Amino acid sequence: MSRQRWWGWGVDGHDGPLPAEGDALLSHELGISSDRRGPPPLEALRLPRPALAPGARSALEAVAGSAWVRDDPFSRVSHAVGRSYPDLVRLRSGTLATAPDAVVEPGTAQDVLEVLRACVRLDLAVVPFGGGTSVVGGVEALRGEHTGVIALDTGRLTGLVDVDVRSGLATLRGGTFGPDVEAELGSHGLTLGHQPQSFEFSTVGGWVATRSAGQASTGYGRIDDLVQGLRLAAPAGEIATGAGPGTAAGPDLRELLVGSEGTLGVITEATLRVRPAPGATRFEAFGLPGFAAGTETLRALTQAGIAATVTRLSDEEETRVNLAMAGSARAVGALRGYLRARGLDRPCLLVLGWEGTDAAALRAHREDGVRVLRAHGAVAVGAKVGAAWARNRYRGAYVRDELLTRGVLVETLETAATWTRLLETYRAVGAALRASLSARGTPALVGCHVSHLYVTGASLYFTFLARQEAGAELEQWHAAKAAAGDAIAAVGATITHHHGVGRDHAPWLEGEVGGLGLTLLRSAKSTLDPTGIMNPGKLLDAPPLPGMPDSTA
Amino acid sequence: MSRQRWWGWGVDGHDGPLPAEGDALLSHELGISSDRRGPPPLEALRLPRPALAPGARSALEAVAGSAWVRDDPFSRVSHAVGRSYPDLVRLRSGTLATAPDAVVEPGTAQDVLEVLRACVRLDLAVVPFGGGTSVVGGVEALRGEHTGVIALDTGRLTGLVDVDVRSGLATLRGGTFGPDVEAELGSHGLTLGHQPQSFEFSTVGGWVATRSAGQASTGYGRIDDLVQGLRLAAPAGEIATGAGPGTAAGPDLRELLVGSEGTLGVITEATLRVRPAPGATRFEAFGLPGFAAGTETLRALTQAGIAATVTRLSDEEETRVNLAMAGSARAVGALRGYLRARGLDRPCLLVLGWEGTDAAALRAHREDGVRVLRAHGAVAVGAKVGAAWARNRYRGAYVRDELLTRGVLVETLETAATWTRLLETYRAVGAALRASLSARGTPALVGCHVSHLYVTGASLYFTFLARQEAGAELEQWHAAKAAAGDAIAAVGATITHHHGVGRDHAPWLEGEVGGLGLTLLRSAKSTLDPTGIMNPGKLLDAPPLPGMPDSTA
Repeated sequence: MSRQRWWGWGVDGHDGPLPAEGDALLSHELGISSDRRGPPPLEALRLPRPALAPGARSALEAVAGSAWVRDDPFSRVSHAVGRSYPDLVRLRSGTLATAPDAVVEPGTAQDVLEVLRACVRLDLAVVPFGGGTSVVGGVEALRGEHTGVIALDTGRLTGLVDVDVRSGLATLRGGTFGPDVEAELGSHGLTLGHQPQSFEFSTVGGWVATRSAGQASTGYGRIDDLVQGLRLAAPAGEIATGAGPGTAAGPDLRELLVGSEGTLGVITEATLRVRPAPGATRFEAFGLPGFAAGTETLRALTQAGIAATVTRLSDEEETRVNLAMAGSARAVGALRGYLRARGLDRPCLLVLGWEGTDAAALRAHREDGVRVLRAHGAVAVGAKVGAAWARNRYRGAYVRDELLTRGVLVETLETAATWTRLLETYRAVGAALRASLSARGTPALVGCHVSHLYVTGASLYFTFLARQEAGAELEQWHAAKAAAGDAIAAVGATITHHHGVGRDHAPWLEGEVGGLGLTLLRSAKSTLDPTGIMNPGKLLDAPPLPGMPDSTA
Repeated sequence: MSRQRWWGWGVDGHDGPLPAEGDALLSHELGISSDRRGPPPLEALRLPRPALAPGARSALEAVAGSAWVRDDPFSRVSHAVGRSYPDLVRLRSGTLATAPDAVVEPGTAQDVLEVLRACVRLDLAVVPFGGGTSVVGGVEALRGEHTGVIALDTGRLTGLVDVDVRSGLATLRGGTFGPDVEAELGSHGLTLGHQPQSFEFSTVGGWVATRSAGQASTGYGRIDDLVQGLRLAAPAGEIATGAGPGTAAGPDLRELLVGSEGTLGVITEATLRVRPAPGATRFEAFGLPGFAAGTETLRALTQAGIAATVTRLSDEEETRVNLAMAGSARAVGALRGYLRARGLDRPCLLVLGWEGTDAAALRAHREDGVRVLRAHGAVAVGAKVGAAWARNRYRGAYVRDELLTRGVLVETLETAATWTRLLETYRAVGAALRASLSARGTPALVGCHVSHLYVTGASLYFTFLARQEAGAELEQWHAAKAAAGDAIAAVGATITHHHGVGRDHAPWLEGEVGGLGLTLLRSAKSTLDPTGIMNPGKLLDAPPLPGMPDSTA
């Protein structure tokens, strides 16, 4: 069962107008008018008719139970697409070219296997659906060459299967949502520490299937680091990878299933490395003298082994835009003045979240880190700014809905690079986005942050805003997306650090893994999904992107 | 070019008689006589005749150069098997049932591809050969269903390709031996920190192909953790996996190639995570009050994030045998007395190797660790015992040759388990080994150590000694190996923590990865090696083990 409203992010009650300063910035720099255009009512949305033959429906009902096979418009629309910019544009357009013929919600891992077998027999494509938060077209209800398509919602596969506190391991069902994961673990004094932006509306299975990285990945590692074992239900059967701490028993099949994005099967369980919940946490912020210097500071921290659990450095442009959008004009004005008085005219804001087993451990770790920060010219701006970030950590996605209502193209994309190539990558992607959007007469604001540190490099996360090109919203998006993707490929960086491949990044996958690599992925798919029903058009063999001249959706 | 003597471990000059106390122990407890039976002279060794057709030889010479295709007896014997117990028994027996028809040593990664293509045309099996130190039958020159078999020695693919000090990355050719890796990196102030027991005679490509773990894996991680990217030459072409710090671009193909043990192709290059060489190191030892208590101490250390870089805890039996074998009777006697006076009648010896960027950092880390050790009843026995271990860290394998000369069955095997299942696994494997060998009238000494710590569990490394069953050495070995393997499988632990699968562990692989997992591995092999020439009989589809009733070798 989808937890999100059908047309946008999350649930109602978190929307609101932009703050005056943000509004002014959009107006002056991007030419955004005060017009508002919200989503149409659900009743007005045109959908393809459900194409499931009566026999197919009853076969699915026989496995999942009749209450768990639905084809009402809300269910279908809620499982038709994810939450990418092209998804939201199409949802708001009044017409959806694709939607699942039914939404099926099996109650057990065994029932998932049975549903998949039924779908093989019925020649129905299956889109595994956790929270539906994909921002890369990962859950779009494409049927490929099949006679129909169902969304397989994992909403009934929830909760803790097993916990081993001594070994720091917990096995959770794939459909468990983020807040429920932490509630279950919290009752044992544990935490997973995995908090992607989508935390409230995404699931364990979705995280594992897409190699997600949480906001605290610098401290806890990405989900790839946290998965010790998993169970996957595929058309060819079930596969379980071992849950031992270390092994040399040949190739690691777990890593073929992690990141498989529903194209090989459904992740029904994952055994995850968990830790004692921290006894102390502290968020705070610093101003840094520029992005180039700031990334060097982060390199020093992480290579010394003393980076904070959450570490998030905005570049000059993202800092400027975020301050404008923050509201509380007085506090922001004071902050700007404080930084300017210390020589930071174009500051880069750094948010840090420290954790420790207790206050003393946190303090010792933080002191080591702050010493490095000060040596690099960082100016402390205190815990309030950090706490404000932490309080609003999941709110950013709601602002996107308001921006769309205001006619703003708003999109994010991300990559990662070694420390040596980080700034080159940063400049190339930013330049490509600005050039693409300027060329269409819609100049862009392009901001960036680093939010996942590795010893060998870091992520880069871009947010860009421009005036929507009315009537050509998808073409405008596609041109910018393609320019950025090509720039990333040209510098040899990864096409995605944590959003996944889905439909939107598939054109660049061959460049990244090579022709033979793609053939290897196809052979794995043929083995687990011989008739190709699993999530067609994602990862491999995706149809043209929305906005391309030859795309239909 | 093999660096090792043809009949045993390493090079000459490190052999010698057992110390008197060790000799007495073997005599009293295992019934070992004073008889010595060394290896036969190379000239007396019977080998199958090289079966390469003249056309095949010239085709290989055309690619690799005529000096780099050899079929002299030394070359062939040196590349016929690895260094497992059954390998050594067969080398000493005077007859080898298998040997490569030629040893080919291509000079570049491109030439490796060309050699593989030639072997596809000629229907020759190819055994990739780094240092030949496999102790699980990983390099045995099996031809499978093919017309002949060559060993592809990576000895010319050596040295540093690239180093990126800022990002902590170094790319090394696959044939680079351990000491050369550290020498190359050392000139840049860096270290890989990967020191398996075979360090002196094993290669980067071999480490990656077998998922090796070094003696310092608790600090540096296993080779799986250190590989950021690699190039593999396969019959179907070359595959290179990305070397970025983090990615969500689908399944991780790197992890399908790491641990592939030469069955998919030849690892020609690896990009490895490297670190600044430590400014300070300190080895020391402690006596611990029992193995069960000792493993709890290690759990506490690693879960608090303060375990030493090298951490190695012997159980009571291994401690007893190692002290008897250590020589220097006076020092050992004093050590025993010192521990007994502190209540440790049956001590477990713990060797720790601390590292730090400088002496102060080491001291701070060590103080945290020692506090935990003392709280768990550990008794410091000082730096001398630790330093002696470090000095002799690569010498243990030579003792094995002397034991074989004395008619001792000596074998090691390893696994890993979660902290919760560690002691259950320890007891089950030890009991299986003792029962198997007792049943044949050759009671065993079975010792064990933990040497690789994870937050979720640890490795277990068993060494067992018994009187050889003359004329049935391989049957005796097989029975013990099978009993241990079955015990490991029954408790759900991994069949190998770091030795790899090779031929010897292949019977247990399906139990570990499942039928569908095995099918996935086979599909990867079909893709990269369509005619199945790469290292036949290893990992998948191995022939019966030496010593089995229906085995031929």
